[in-house]
Amino acid sequence: MTIRIAVIGAGLMGADHARIVAEDMPGATLRVVCDRDAARAASLADRHGAEAATDPVAVIARDDVDALIVASPDVTHAPLCLACISAGKKVLCEKPLSQSSSECLDVLRAEEARGGRHVMLGFMRRFDPAYLQMRRALTDGTIGRALMLHNWHRNGSTPAPDFTGAMAITNSAPHEFDILRYLLDSEPVCITATQPRRSDDKVAPVVMVVGTEDGQIVTIEVNNNAAYGYDVKAELIGETGSIATTHLSHTRIDKDARQSVGHDPDWRNRYAEAYRQQNRAFLHWVRGGDYPGRAASSWDGYAAAMIAEAGVAALHSGRRQDISLIPRPEFYA
Amino acid sequence: MTIRIAVIGAGLMGADHARIVAEDMPGATLRVVCDRDAARAASLADRHGAEAATDPVAVIARDDVDALIVASPDVTHAPLCLACISAGKKVLCEKPLSQSSSECLDVLRAEEARGGRHVMLGFMRRFDPAYLQMRRALTDGTIGRALMLHNWHRNGSTPAPDFTGAMAITNSAPHEFDILRYLLDSEPVCITATQPRRSDDKVAPVVMVVGTEDGQIVTIEVNNNAAYGYDVKAELIGETGSIATTHLSHTRIDKDARQSVGHDPDWRNRYAEAYRQQNRAFLHWVRGGDYPGRAASSWDGYAAAMIAEAGVAALHSGRRQDISLIPRPEFYA
Amino acid sequence: MTIRIAVIGAGLMGADHARIVAEDMPGATLRVVCDRDAARAASLADRHGAEAATDPVAVIARDDVDALIVASPDVTHAPLCLACISAGKKVLCEKPLSQSSSECLDVLRAEEARGGRHVMLGFMRRFDPAYLQMRRALTDGTIGRALMLHNWHRNGSTPAPDFTGAMAITNSAPHEFDILRYLLDSEPVCITATQPRRSDDKVAPVVMVVGTEDGQIVTIEVNNNAAYGYDVKAELIGETGSIATTHLSHTRIDKDARQSVGHDPDWRNRYAEAYRQQNRAFLHWVRGGDYPGRAASSWDGYAAAMIAEAGVAALHSGRRQDISLIPRPEFYA
Amino acid sequence: MTIRIAVIGAGLMGADHARIVAEDMPGATLRVVCDRDAARAASLADRHGAEAATDPVAVIARDDVDALIVASPDVTHAPLCLACISAGKKVLCEKPLSQSSSECLDVLRAEEARGGRHVMLGFMRRFDPAYLQMRRALTDGTIGRALMLHNWHRNGSTPAPDFTGAMAITNSAPHEFDILRYLLDSEPVCITATQPRRSDDKVAPVVMVVGTEDGQIVTIEVNNNAAYGYDVKAELIGETGSIATTHLSHTRIDKDARQSVGHDPDWRNRYAEAYRQQNRAFLHWVRGGDYPGRAASSWDGYAAAMIAEAGVAALHSGRRQDISLIPRPEFYA
Repeated sequence: MTIRIAVIGAGLMGADHARIVAEDMPGATLRVVCDRDAARAASLADRHGAEAATDPVAVIARDDVDALIVASPDVTHAPLCLACISAGKKVLCEKPLSQSSSECLDVLRAEEARGGRHVMLGFMRRFDPAYLQMRRALTDGTIGRALMLHNWHRNGSTPAPDFTGAMAITNSAPHEFDILRYLLDSEPVCITATQPRRSDDKVAPVVMVVGTEDGQIVTIEVNNNAAYGYDVKAELIGETGSIATTHLSHTRIDKDARQSVGHDPDWRNRYAEAYRQQNRAFLHWVRGGDYPGRAASSWDGYAAAMIAEAGVAALHSGRRQDISLIPRPEFYA
Repeated sequence: MTIRIAVIGAGLMGADHARIVAEDMPGATLRVVCDRDAARAASLADRHGAEAATDPVAVIARDDVDALIVASPDVTHAPLCLACISAGKKVLCEKPLSQSSSECLDVLRAEEARGGRHVMLGFMRRFDPAYLQMRRALTDGTIGRALMLHNWHRNGSTPAPDFTGAMAITNSAPHEFDILRYLLDSEPVCITATQPRRSDDKVAPVVMVVGTEDGQIVTIEVNNNAAYGYDVKAELIGETGSIATTHLSHTRIDKDARQSVGHDPDWRNRYAEAYRQQNRAFLHWVRGGDYPGRAASSWDGYAAAMIAEAGVAALHSGRRQDISLIPRPEFYA
Repeated sequence: MTIRIAVIGAGLMGADHARIVAEDMPGATLRVVCDRDAARAASLADRHGAEAATDPVAVIARDDVDALIVASPDVTHAPLCLACISAGKKVLCEKPLSQSSSECLDVLRAEEARGGRHVMLGFMRRFDPAYLQMRRALTDGTIGRALMLHNWHRNGSTPAPDFTGAMAITNSAPHEFDILRYLLDSEPVCITATQPRRSDDKVAPVVMVVGTEDGQIVTIEVNNNAAYGYDVKAELIGETGSIATTHLSHTRIDKDARQSVGHDPDWRNRYAEAYRQQNRAFLHWVRGGDYPGRAASSWDGYAAAMIAEAGVAALHSGRRQDISLIPRPEFYA
Repeated sequence: MTIRIAVIGAGLMGADHARIVAEDMPGATLRVVCDRDAARAASLADRHGAEAATDPVAVIARDDVDALIVASPDVTHAPLCLACISAGKKVLCEKPLSQSSSECLDVLRAEEARGGRHVMLGFMRRFDPAYLQMRRALTDGTIGRALMLHNWHRNGSTPAPDFTGAMAITNSAPHEFDILRYLLDSEPVCITATQPRRSDDKVAPVVMVVGTEDGQIVTIEVNNNAAYGYDVKAELIGETGSIATTHLSHTRIDKDARQSVGHDPDWRNRYAEAYRQQNRAFLHWVRGGDYPGRAASSWDGYAAAMIAEAGVAALHSGRRQDISLIPRPEFYA
C-alpha cells in the first residue's frame, strides 16, 4: 500500500521534497509534480519518473494522489491547504501557512469543521537533533526552568534584491517564532523590533525581543546579509545551566596560519536530516499513524503569523507590541 | 523491479543492516533474515515483515533472493562470500573478509574466475563525510602531498572479556588499515606494534606505526578500554597543511562549572550516514549500476588481512615486520 | 625613580591591585594600603611589606605617595578622585566612577579645571587581548563596518542576597556599556531593558538593547545567577564578517561519556592579563609617559553612568529611554 | 636586595630573557648582556639600560653579577654552566644542557662536587598551565593511571636550511623528551624513530615511539616544516579518561565561508606565561628560596640528552634502541 504523493511547487524547496519522496521515503512514491511553469514541472517530474501537472487544484482532486506536499509560493499555501482539507487529503505545507493571521484562522476553522487534522506545517526544525536535544534539556531538568532563549538566523545574502526588514520578519523569522514556542512551550505576549543601519542599500539585520506568558525573554537576530555564509544558532538558558547549538563540520583544516571549519552556503545541508525525518513523520501519519506529536499544525502556523504581524508593527512603530492569540481551540490541544 | 535482499546474521550489525534495508533503501525489500539461532532470526525478521531462515547456503540459493548482506560471525564471511560468488549473486560482506590472508586470496581467485565483481566489503568509512573530506583535501591539493596520518580508535570497553592485543589488531584495527590505504592511495610495506601496560587485567591499547610504499608514516592507536566512550579520530598531515576530523555533537551544555559535549557509546550513531550511503551504493550496483568506485573490494579485504597478520607478528616479536602484498590483479585495478 | 603607590580599599579588588603593584609592576612599590577596617588594611599591607592606614584623604596627601589606586566601595570613588585631582596626583580608580552621572560631571569639571588628566578608570577590558582583537578586526577592515554587538555577562551567583535588576545594570553592566563604546567608537542614544521571571527569589537576568548614534544595535544579557560559572562573551558583527570571543581553557578532558572544558568561578583568572597590562599602562603614565590612548577616562565613567541611569529607567518604565550625553569636552577628545 | 642578573647570548631567546628580567621580574635587575658579537650585545643592553660585554667567563666572575641566564649557542651551555658552578653562582640555562650525554654528566658531577644545586634548566613547559593541568589530572586521579602520551611539535618552517632529521631529534624533540618524563614521572627505556619522505628537499617530520620503565607508550611527531604555523599539542591518556591541550585563541572569525582561529608564527606567544613563571621561580631560588620543585635540573638535561642520542641511533639504524640512564644520584632525588 504505497502512498502516492504530489508535490506542488517545483522551485528549490519543491525539488528537495520531490527528491526526498522519490529517494528517501520507502512506502511513498512521487506521483505528480505540479508547477504553474509547465517546463519546470516537467523537468523535475522527469528526474524522478513522476507525472507533471500545472493545476494544483486538479492535482489535489486526483484519485491517484493520496497526499500532498505544498512548496509553491507563500501566498498559495493557505488556499491550497483549504483545498486539501476540502478534498479530505492530508498535506505537508511549507511554512508559512499564511502571512495573514486571519487567513490562518480560515484554515484552522476549515480543519476543525472537517473534524480531523489535515495539515502538517513544515517547521522542520522540530525534527532537528540540535533543537530536540535543547528541548530534552528542559524536559529532563538538565538546565532547570527556561529563562531566556537567544536565536541567530544568518544568510549569506538576501534572496531578493528588494528584501526589506519587514520581510525578514515575515519570511525568515517565522522559523525562530515557531522554535521558541516549541522549545519554551509558552505563548509569546509581546515583541519589540529594531534594525541597525547598513552603509549600503542591502537590508539590515533585525533584532527582536519577545516576551512569553511564562515570563521568558527571547532575543532574535535575523541577518539576511551576513556575507560569510548560512549560520543558524541558538542558546537556551535555564535557571541551572545552558544548552547551545554547535557549529557542525566533519573536518577542520590547518592551513595558511589559520585553523578553520567551513560554513554552509544555505540551509539544505544543515537541515537535511530534519527534512528527512519530518517527511517520514508525515508519511507515517498519512498511512494511518497518529499525528506526529512534535510536528507543527495549523495552530502553530497561526501563532507564527500573529507574532510576525506584531513584529512588523513593532519595527514600524518603534514600540513594543502586544501579541494576543485567540484561546487555543480544544481541537489543537 | 524491487531488489530482494537477505541479511545473514541477526546480531548487532545484522539488525542494523536489516533496518536499513527495510526502512532506508527505496527500491530494496528485506526478504529473508537468516541466523543459526532460529529465534533470533525470527525476532528480527518479524520486526521488518521478512521471512526467517537458519541455513545461509540455502538462503543464498533462493530464487527470490537477489542479493545478500553478510553480517554473521567473522569466520563465516569468506565461505559465505564464496557461496555467493558461486551462486552468481552480489554480496555486501561485513569486514573482515577473513582474518586469514590466504582465505582472502581464495575469495579473490574465485571472484576473478567467475569473471566479475561479486563482493563489496563493508568498510563503511569510505562513505563517511569526514573521511571523504580528508581524501578530497589531498586530491584537490588543499594540504599538499600526504606525509603522515594519525588514527585513534577508542571503544568504551572491550566487547569480550578475553580480548587480547592481537584481537585489537585483527578485529578493531582493520578499519584503520583500510582507511589508511583509501586515504593515502598507497600500499603499506612495514608495521611495528607495541602496547603499554595496564594496572588491571583489561586489554591494553595497541600502538602501531605503518610505513607505505610512497614513504608515508601512519600511526594507529587502538584502545578498546578507553572508558570514557566511543571515539574515533584521524588527522592527515600534508606538506602544506593538515586536515582532521572534529568531534561531532549537535549541542553543548554549560553546567556545574564545565562546558561539555557528549560522547557516543558506540559507533552506530557516528557512522549511521556512512552505513546508509554504503548500503545504497550496494543497491545501485546490484540494480545494474557500476561498481561503486570508493567501495572496498575483496582485494581491500586481502590487504587488510595482510596488514593485520604482520601487525600481530610485530606485536609478538617486538620487531618491525615487512608487509608484502601480491601484485594487485588487473581484475581489481 | 620608583613610583610609590597607595592602594585604597583592601577588599577583593584592592587585594588584587596590591598584589599586582607589589609583584608585577617593576618600577613601582606598594607604599600604603588604606582601609576603613584597620585590621584588613594591616593584613594586606603586611603581606606585601607596605604600611597600613585608615584615612584615605590623609594617604592621598602624603609626600611619599606618588599615585593612587582606588578600590574602595563604589560611593567613595568620585570623592576620592576629587581628592586626588585636588592633590595633583594621578589615580587609577576602579569602575564605576560614580553611579550618579552628575557626580561624574563634578569629577570631569574638576579635572578640566585642574588643567590635566588625573583620573584613569579601571575598565580593564580595554586591555584584554580578546576585545583588542575585536577592535582591530574593525579598524583593519576584517569584518567591515560594525552593525551589531552581542554581550553576555554571567556570574555563577549574585554577590549580594538583596541584589536587584537595577543593581545588575548599575554594578555589572557598566563593563558592557564601556566596552560597546570602546569597540564601536560611537555613543549610545537609547536603551530598553527587560527581565525574565525566575521561579525563585534570586535576581533574574536583565536583557538590554542599546542603539548608538551611528545606528548600531547592541544586545546585553546580564545574568548574575547563571549557576554554572563565570562566563563573559561577546560577538561583534560587521557588514562582511563577524568576530567573537572564544572560551579559553588550556586543556579539555574526556571522561564519563563527556568531553569538557572548565569554567572559571569568577573574573580574576579571565582578566588577569588585562589588569596587569592596565596597571602597567597606569604606571607608564604616572612616570611621565603619555596618557594611555586606550584607557578609560572620567568622560568614559560619565558615559557609563548615563547609560546605566537610562537603563534603570527603561527597566522600571518598560519603555525605551533616550540617552543624551553632554557634548564631549575638548579636554577629553 | 635586588638580584643583579647577566644574560649571556643576545639572540632571539637572549633578547626574550633580557626583556623578562628588565620588565617582568620585580626584585631583579638586568646588569649585563653578553654576546660574542659586541654590537648585538650593545644593542640589547642599551634597550634595557644594562651594560654590554663579550666575554662570558669574565661576566660570570663579576662581583656585581649575582646570577646568570645562559641563552648562547647550544655548544656553550655546558661549559658556561660549569663556569657558573665553579664561581658558585646560580644559572638558568636554556635547553639543551648539552647534546652530549657525557658532557651533561660532567655538569652533574661538578654540581654534586660543589655540594649544592646551581643549575636550573630552561624546560619552560613545566611552568605552562596546560602541562600543569595535565600533570594534575594524573596526580589527582581524574584520568586514572597514565597509559599513553601523544605529542606533536610543529614549526612553520625549518630554522636552518640544512636541518636534518637528527637535528629535529636533538634540537626540537628535547622539549618532548623532558615533558614526557615530567608528566609520566617515569624514565624512558627504549625508542624507535622513523621519517616519511617529502617530495622536496626540506627536512621531513620524525615520528618516534618511546617506552617507559612503567610500561607507558609515548608517541612524538616533530614536524619542522608544517607550513601552516607553530603548533604544539599533547594528549595524555589514562586508564579512566584523557586530557589534551586545546588550541588557544582569544577570538574566532567568521568570514568568507569559514570560521577560523589563528595559529602563532612561533613559540613565544604560546609560552610567554611559562617563561615568565619559570624566570620568576629562578629568581625566587636565587634569592634564597627552595629549588623550585617542578623546574628541570642538570639531571633532567642528562636524561634528555640520553633519549636524543638513542633517538638519533634509532633513526639511523631503523631499529629500536634501548635507553639506559645511570642510576639517579641521591643529589637529584
